[in-house]
Amino acid sequence: MTSPICLRPIGVVEVGLPRSDKVDRFSFVSVIKIFDEYVEGLRGLEEYSHAFIVWLFHEAKAARLTLRPWGREDLPEVGIFATRFPNRPNPLALTIVKIVEVDPPRLRVMGLDAWSGSPVLDIKPYDHLDVVNEFKTPDWFEEFFKETRGELPHWLGPRR
Amino acid sequence: MTSPICLRPIGVVEVGLPRSDKVDRFSFVSVIKIFDEYVEGLRGLEEYSHAFIVWLFHEAKAARLTLRPWGREDLPEVGIFATRFPNRPNPLALTIVKIVEVDPPRLRVMGLDAWSGSPVLDIKPYDHLDVVNEFKTPDWFEEFFKETRGELPHWLGPRR
Repeated sequence: MTSPICLRPIGVVEVGLPRSDKVDRFSFVSVIKIFDEYVEGLRGLEEYSHAFIVWLFHEAKAARLTLRPWGREDLPEVGIFATRFPNRPNPLALTIVKIVEVDPPRLRVMGLDAWSGSPVLDIKPYDHLDVVNEFKTPDWFEEFFKETRGELPHWLGPRR
Repeated sequence: MTSPICLRPIGVVEVGLPRSDKVDRFSFVSVIKIFDEYVEGLRGLEEYSHAFIVWLFHEAKAARLTLRPWGREDLPEVGIFATRFPNRPNPLALTIVKIVEVDPPRLRVMGLDAWSGSPVLDIKPYDHLDVVNEFKTPDWFEEFFKETRGELPHWLGPRR
């Protein structure tokens, strides 16, 4: 059960978010290049509007089991599984994106928070079972989210 | 870029869905056991109502790049990345669950479609950026979904 599980990237983020805060992640178009041997797997993806990108935090530092979110002393120390931070036991990243164009072997998406060079492990279409309209997050998360995020991207659709 | 990426399970599905269609996946409570060395990472997860479970389709057959969904001849052949089927290049599974109880080292959740023994790779809390209220899926998906699914589980919240 604890033997290692080895995966191979199916593609790479060819054009990712610049390493600067000046770019709006939510309107930036990222380019994922799918490796030749997996391109056929994209067939029909263009009929979906949104997808999950499972990618690797390939520059993540050593895993931590607890941390203060964003290193802020005013926030509680929480477990890594209560956050989406990169320094996880398995540095898997998960982001919901808007599909802008499926142009094999490339895929253009909006909302991806990966840098160029990040390995991509999987693409999964978004469907009805992925929408939770009544959910709870901790107070520390809500406060920080309101403080920093402002408007949600229009392509997530209206809120309830 | 194509060198293998090796991960280790952080836990295992101790009580998963029975291998029978007679159980309602959406009201069944699954038990995930987190391995001792990662238990501290659960701290604060109980303040969220929903989470993503990233697990492994450990019994998935050889990967395919295209398939007819559910093996149905009346549905179009589509790429594996346009489906959530198990026989993917990287057999990663992703399910949104309702958190029923965080009782370290165990986590009880509703909605997990994993069998007992499935390795768990990561847990990520569900938040505002994961909700897409206006999205599109292909006609073949919509028809099959309506035909087979009926009501969505109440714990996903009301639909728009």
